[in-house]
Amino acid sequence: MSLLKRIEAALEQQFSLTRTASAPPRLMDAMRHAVFPGGARIRPQLCMAVAKACGEDDHELTDAAAVAIELLHCASLVHDDMPCFDDADMRRGQVTVHKQFGEPLALLTGDALIIMAYQVLARSGRQHPMRTVQLLSVISEGVGAPDGIVAGQAWECETRVELSQYQRAKTGALFVAATCGGALAAGVDPAPWRKLGDTLGEAYQVADDIRDVMMQADQLGKPAGQDAHHGRPSAAADLGLVGALDYFNGLMQTAADSVPLCESREAMRKLVLMESERLVPPSACEQISRQYPTSATSRVSA
Amino acid sequence: MSLLKRIEAALEQQFSLTRTASAPPRLMDAMRHAVFPGGARIRPQLCMAVAKACGEDDHELTDAAAVAIELLHCASLVHDDMPCFDDADMRRGQVTVHKQFGEPLALLTGDALIIMAYQVLARSGRQHPMRTVQLLSVISEGVGAPDGIVAGQAWECETRVELSQYQRAKTGALFVAATCGGALAAGVDPAPWRKLGDTLGEAYQVADDIRDVMMQADQLGKPAGQDAHHGRPSAAADLGLVGALDYFNGLMQTAADSVPLCESREAMRKLVLMESERLVPPSACEQISRQYPTSATSRVSA
Repeated sequence: MSLLKRIEAALEQQFSLTRTASAPPRLMDAMRHAVFPGGARIRPQLCMAVAKACGEDDHELTDAAAVAIELLHCASLVHDDMPCFDDADMRRGQVTVHKQFGEPLALLTGDALIIMAYQVLARSGRQHPMRTVQLLSVISEGVGAPDGIVAGQAWECETRVELSQYQRAKTGALFVAATCGGALAAGVDPAPWRKLGDTLGEAYQVADDIRDVMMQADQLGKPAGQDAHHGRPSAAADLGLVGALDYFNGLMQTAADSVPLCESREAMRKLVLMESERLVPPSACEQISRQYPTSATSRVSA
Repeated sequence: MSLLKRIEAALEQQFSLTRTASAPPRLMDAMRHAVFPGGARIRPQLCMAVAKACGEDDHELTDAAAVAIELLHCASLVHDDMPCFDDADMRRGQVTVHKQFGEPLALLTGDALIIMAYQVLARSGRQHPMRTVQLLSVISEGVGAPDGIVAGQAWECETRVELSQYQRAKTGALFVAATCGGALAAGVDPAPWRKLGDTLGEAYQVADDIRDVMMQADQLGKPAGQDAHHGRPSAAADLGLVGALDYFNGLMQTAADSVPLCESREAMRKLVLMESERLVPPSACEQISRQYPTSATSRVSA
């Protein structure tokens, strides 16, 4: 089974356990709407890939960690789309939760998805309780204060913010949770996997900034030009498109090089480099080169 | 040390661990604003009282459970006060979080407090990992879907709702988490403590409904008459004030009688009966008797 199929099945299973006769039906509909259909499911796939690379021995716990991370990501998107933040109408090609179900249910949906992430961990944690407590710690670090995605979003409410600290919290932290969480679910020391998550996370944020500037809303599945519109820190604004692309390529190379020694090191490195092309497609690189013919940007290599 | 002092100290300690140099300062201020000064801190005190009654042997874990429950309660208040719900200006005698810090930070503050609750559990859970996984389950049940406080609030967005199911989720569930969490933190089977939490929770909600009708905003520390204003289910509206008071007294008697056999059973029973007078003061009972002289309401007895 591909990792994508595996995470979809695991998410479906958890939703079937949560939807009981006593649950408020509209809340459950809104929670599903926030999670299905998904985006690329990068974070949970990364978590599962690392667990496999670490010789996973408790599939249920790996699935729980991956599902928890994806639910926390979806929760952040629901709240981020609300009128007091991005006021976005579309997400992943469908209307946003607050547009479909109203603001009160969107607020509660985000809350309920955050808590569901922990319910999933609790449900699958009894076979390896110590690993589960460590997962609880690493995953919460990725989303909460002082350095997780909630803190990352909160930096948008400060008057001064350093770009790399902001991006590390807003995106990188949950990628670190994904790589370290995968290792922990397999009972392995997560420390050597931290740099891969950290670097990939920053690269994803930079790619997002580049796409936000370059692409149209129908290609993105959500409104374009949002960073400039909301005056948010952005690598593309700070470094220019060429500089941002260079920076992105450097990060992806660092990410590939940071994969720790393990049986499937080469496969993991290739995965990272393939992601690089998915994130900023060759057509985008060409477009930047045409616009700025004097500068050369080099892609990463294996 | 009184239980109230103990919970305040435990909350302070966790905030000092969360406020690092890398944390966004306004988010941290908003989180503190949501938690200090507190209300009666009933839920965490109940959690600690049950842990003591069960012969607690891991004070740090009891504190963590109690802090987690209070943080989750405070998070729900922050979100509940926001413009898309109650649009409240005042809470616990001070301006609400969104009034002081703006809507975006209020939204993030609620999220960050939910996650902080789990960070606290993770931090104190390594000595008894299996208890911690069970706590994770019981506490999440009290706040998440399908039957926790988030679901309770979501029932306000449905067209049909049964009063007792709504109140059980909106308030009772976190009281159950408090009593069962106290037992679990002490390594004791939580099942016999469920009824106490369930009944106390419903009684608190009924008392809240009665006070919402009877008291003025300056006595409540928040706006009065909110249930009628928002068309929310309310025992006082359903049963009338006399009926609601009778129902409340019956619940408090049931709660007192449900305290399981343990060394401090009599002390726990007395605590419950004292709470009864704090929740609906004798002056309120007299006022209801004067307004409805033909009906008699009887208070609970030890």
